[in-house]
Amino acid sequence: MYSPLISQLIESLRVLPGVGPKSAQRMALQLLERNQSGALRLAGALTQACEKVGRCESCRTLTEETVCSLCKSTRRDASLLCIVEMPADVFALEQSGTFSGKYFVLMGKLSPLDGIGPKELGLEQLAHRFAVGEIDEVIIATNPTMEGEATAHYIAEMAKQHKLKVSRIAHGVPLGGELEFIDGGTLAHALASRREI
Amino acid sequence: MYSPLISQLIESLRVLPGVGPKSAQRMALQLLERNQSGALRLAGALTQACEKVGRCESCRTLTEETVCSLCKSTRRDASLLCIVEMPADVFALEQSGTFSGKYFVLMGKLSPLDGIGPKELGLEQLAHRFAVGEIDEVIIATNPTMEGEATAHYIAEMAKQHKLKVSRIAHGVPLGGELEFIDGGTLAHALASRREI
Repeated sequence: MYSPLISQLIESLRVLPGVGPKSAQRMALQLLERNQSGALRLAGALTQACEKVGRCESCRTLTEETVCSLCKSTRRDASLLCIVEMPADVFALEQSGTFSGKYFVLMGKLSPLDGIGPKELGLEQLAHRFAVGEIDEVIIATNPTMEGEATAHYIAEMAKQHKLKVSRIAHGVPLGGELEFIDGGTLAHALASRREI
Repeated sequence: MYSPLISQLIESLRVLPGVGPKSAQRMALQLLERNQSGALRLAGALTQACEKVGRCESCRTLTEETVCSLCKSTRRDASLLCIVEMPADVFALEQSGTFSGKYFVLMGKLSPLDGIGPKELGLEQLAHRFAVGEIDEVIIATNPTMEGEATAHYIAEMAKQHKLKVSRIAHGVPLGGELEFIDGGTLAHALASRREI
């Protein structure tokens, strides 16, 4: 029904997460009808980002710089290292505004079935950072999934070998959450990790 | 938090309809982490489509050809013309598989406040097509909104001046729709347009 170039654009838009055939069609037509300059800007941004963005040499997050701005910053506490799975986790933690240490981004989690082992997560590089002695404390903030917990456990063992203080972020009932609507696993965790007041 | 190129990509993704800051961030990171080839293909498709796609000379729909495939087709009934607002409407009608005439795409609707008059909708071109005498019947399928109805009325008057048969698609309760959940306006229309059985 649509001409080849429009069909190709609709098909290409489906690489975006959460975009099905209907949304892709709506996006393609709206861009062509009303916002061609925006579409060209998007095309340019995609090309530039794909060409130039790589990994930070120090924390492995996505960046076009050799070392990312957080790693370069001298105002952050280099003795405190927070380990997360993805760049979006760094963003979420920074939004909370309560962490002033440095980050290490695994870009995934241990998942042997998918062929993701310690090497793919840069754990050799992490072990090297543990060894040089700049870090005093490691906070592990991987997600509370099966793989996330396994990854946390593996990294905790590594850190202990270097006699570092290791902690895991707390899991439990989120602020503003109502007990009635919280899943059983989270409640069990919240009970087991209760703190005396 | 993100490096300049990544922030620029996130910002650029917001030209897509229905994409807010959170989704744009998720899309940008997912493309950079997992699907750079898809991202480059999307950039290429956007550029190509913006450069080459224009309007069909005959029906005004979006296409990179001079005359679109539906207008070129000799298997379609040229005496029957269906008038719609947008290219997506052509797609929806073709999906229904019950219309075998030709289309005319207004690319909008009369909306004086937004500066959209008969000229912007190509109504001169439409009048010319009415005048050459190829068309016998006109079906007006603009949306049942205030502006859509005004546009339908305007075009119906034009067609009548050329002594053409004019009809408007039916509006009422959609198939599978439950009366309980249909809005009052639609029900009023369905009652007023009732047919004897």
